[in-house]
Amino acid sequence: MNYKMVGFVLGRIFLIEAALMLFPMGCAAIYGEWSVVLSFLWPALIVLALGLITSLRTPQNTKIYARDGLAIVALVWVLMSVFGALPFVISGEIPSFADAFFETVSGFTTTGSTILTDVEALSHGTLFWRSFSHWIGGMGVLVFAMAVLPMTDGRAMHLMRAEVPGPTCGKISSKLSDSAKILYAIYLVMTVIETILLCAGGMPLFDALIHSFGTAGTGGFGFKNDSFTSFSPYIQWVVTIFMILFGVNFNAYFLLLLRKFNRVISEEVRGYFVVILAAVGLITANIYSIYNNFGEALRQAAFQVGSIITTTGFSSCDFDLWPTLSKEILVVLMFIGACAGSTGGGIKVSRLLILGKTLGKELKQALHPQVVAPVRMDGKVVNHETIRATNVYVAAYIFIFAASFFLISLDGFDMVTNFTAIAATLNNIGPGLAQVGPMMNFGSYSNPAKLVMIFDMLAGRLEIFPMLVFFMPDTWRRF
Amino acid sequence: MNYKMVGFVLGRIFLIEAALMLFPMGCAAIYGEWSVVLSFLWPALIVLALGLITSLRTPQNTKIYARDGLAIVALVWVLMSVFGALPFVISGEIPSFADAFFETVSGFTTTGSTILTDVEALSHGTLFWRSFSHWIGGMGVLVFAMAVLPMTDGRAMHLMRAEVPGPTCGKISSKLSDSAKILYAIYLVMTVIETILLCAGGMPLFDALIHSFGTAGTGGFGFKNDSFTSFSPYIQWVVTIFMILFGVNFNAYFLLLLRKFNRVISEEVRGYFVVILAAVGLITANIYSIYNNFGEALRQAAFQVGSIITTTGFSSCDFDLWPTLSKEILVVLMFIGACAGSTGGGIKVSRLLILGKTLGKELKQALHPQVVAPVRMDGKVVNHETIRATNVYVAAYIFIFAASFFLISLDGFDMVTNFTAIAATLNNIGPGLAQVGPMMNFGSYSNPAKLVMIFDMLAGRLEIFPMLVFFMPDTWRRF
Repeated sequence: MNYKMVGFVLGRIFLIEAALMLFPMGCAAIYGEWSVVLSFLWPALIVLALGLITSLRTPQNTKIYARDGLAIVALVWVLMSVFGALPFVISGEIPSFADAFFETVSGFTTTGSTILTDVEALSHGTLFWRSFSHWIGGMGVLVFAMAVLPMTDGRAMHLMRAEVPGPTCGKISSKLSDSAKILYAIYLVMTVIETILLCAGGMPLFDALIHSFGTAGTGGFGFKNDSFTSFSPYIQWVVTIFMILFGVNFNAYFLLLLRKFNRVISEEVRGYFVVILAAVGLITANIYSIYNNFGEALRQAAFQVGSIITTTGFSSCDFDLWPTLSKEILVVLMFIGACAGSTGGGIKVSRLLILGKTLGKELKQALHPQVVAPVRMDGKVVNHETIRATNVYVAAYIFIFAASFFLISLDGFDMVTNFTAIAATLNNIGPGLAQVGPMMNFGSYSNPAKLVMIFDMLAGRLEIFPMLVFFMPDTWRRF
Repeated sequence: MNYKMVGFVLGRIFLIEAALMLFPMGCAAIYGEWSVVLSFLWPALIVLALGLITSLRTPQNTKIYARDGLAIVALVWVLMSVFGALPFVISGEIPSFADAFFETVSGFTTTGSTILTDVEALSHGTLFWRSFSHWIGGMGVLVFAMAVLPMTDGRAMHLMRAEVPGPTCGKISSKLSDSAKILYAIYLVMTVIETILLCAGGMPLFDALIHSFGTAGTGGFGFKNDSFTSFSPYIQWVVTIFMILFGVNFNAYFLLLLRKFNRVISEEVRGYFVVILAAVGLITANIYSIYNNFGEALRQAAFQVGSIITTTGFSSCDFDLWPTLSKEILVVLMFIGACAGSTGGGIKVSRLLILGKTLGKELKQALHPQVVAPVRMDGKVVNHETIRATNVYVAAYIFIFAASFFLISLDGFDMVTNFTAIAATLNNIGPGLAQVGPMMNFGSYSNPAKLVMIFDMLAGRLEIFPMLVFFMPDTWRRF
């Protein structure tokens, strides 16, 4: 491990975090919440000082190996969350550090699971920080670092690959910092458009911003205890559409900008929309009898499907009361997740496509051993490395899921609660069912269980490997 | 597809099934149940006639491809169950054919899920057939066919590979028919020993036979509505130990006979016992407060762990009332399953070992890209083909699980019921939790849901691929 380089990268992230904390401070100042301003000031100064100390001198040896990239990304996310949790504790709005850490990790990883019973009691500054953390975590803080403070060394690719979700890291531009800038530009413009549309629907600017951050990062923190239940159908439709749009691989938008229309709808994007349409159709039919109104049933179905498949986690009704089939569809959507290269979590549509196609290929080969038909995505052969990585990812996913499921069961909740709590955190969704359902929260779990779920949220956001490498002693050996 | 050869193999199986039906007939005759004797006579004559017609002439071309092997095995199991279900219908003890088919598939696949509310009302002949089907299905009917009617052609290996569980088919002897004979001899001797031990505990011979069949095949059909709840601790311990022994890879017993003691405890067998000891320890501690007696808690824990990990499905208490942790451990054991090459079902310990080792290797390789460390089991390098097959198996398993989970949810049961119903049938266990818990049954599901679970039981027993190939139109093309 190149410790000087680790310090350098961490330093930059600390500087960025200090700068980002200015936003909630400003917001708190606008609303005259001076104690909240102070609660951000101290953490901001701490990370600023740490950032200055560690990043002032560029190390001479900027070499990063792939494994270092993984470990650095994990370390960045853990430390960023530790410092990001301080304002909650200092302001006294979340007095327990464990709870504040859970909430911050949930924010940065765009999970949206909360330990708060009464979100409506939070100050504006704190609400802003919670939701802003979704926006930062959605596209990735290292990607942001590359956009604003370009790294000259090509090895920064290892960092980007570890942070951008999906089995492959599509480089949009030949230059990495350009890719990062383009991604953030698309992200920003879409967030602004959503904010404008929400304001047009009569939502105050602050509320619109909070919800746009939550949608853009596919996070799910809101500021109402009942999430979107009481908002107008217009607002619900706008959010539904934007949740689904933020779950699309951002390459699609870039190709759209380049007017390469024939390549916009990749197999993954097509698969993503097919799953959404099928799920919305099935659930609408299944819940029609509850709402007795096609428009209402369709809206509720579309909102929940968009929210769950993109792993946002907003809810426009208590879907825990829906029939079993609809609930099961939502549970399966929890695992499918959004497209690779989007801000959404879950296993990702492309991984499932690769798994499905590999399976189909093997079956075909069992029938016709003489025919060699490689797995193809968008006409290109999927290389053996990607297939292997996908399989390893699934294996690791299963083991982490099973282990977490056990560990949190020591708290004695029922099995649906435990199962969906892990599904909701490992897939970065937010709410589960039963005791962690959309109208409930994660506050009743013990601290050890919360720690397990904090690990799961980070593992989900960073796609497992960085978190495993982070805990391997070999990783931290100096060379 | 070589149809003449398909007919030939089917014919032999029909002849064997006709012969096997003589046993329940004899049993019914001993108890003077003459109507039951008749209910077996007709189906026995039908399969005898079919068997004679299709197998009298050995085909000139005995070539079987691997794919044909898969499809033939699937066809054998489906037809064997169709005819095996007839006695239940004719005797009127299970009037609905769908129910009788479910019960028979559950028997042959050694699942042990029942649609019967009152097992105690069945006649002796029918009870015998139910449990005997476990014994036949446990080691495999094609393996039996090879033991008693040896096939000269080496290609019969394809049949054996498709029927013997596990990622690799260890040929015990160089000659296939010898392997089959040795396997069945070990199987028979162990069954006889268990019967003797049960009789020594005061159990009548008929009861002892029924339970030995259920244990040996890791099936789970008994003849009491409350399974083993009311039996003595001695009986419960005998069954516990034999369930666990029948879940061991039979190669271990063969190596024991050959006095190759250093090779008996393979990595898989070690892993299997480690999981059992850990699960028994955890559950004993967790349920101690319920029983307030260490011996009782240990016995209940060991019985349930042995029953679930080997996918037998007997129960010595209503474990649905246990604390969540214990129930979750049992749910995870449902998926782990027994050793490859045993009579147990589930994903199999060796597959999970391969997955875990592959994951460990990939992590190590991420840290030290220059080191190439292949995956090893018992000191031997696991070849790429086996790893790929394991990954494909897991992918297929997940897809089938998710699809089945959806399909049966149309019946409107709760999610725990649906989830554990699929887990119980796809892993060939028997009871699940909630509405399909140890004291409940599968009778309340609709016929379409039963058909899904029939597919799952067969897919579980034959390890998925034969059932997928069976439903591909290409398979049945003449060449």
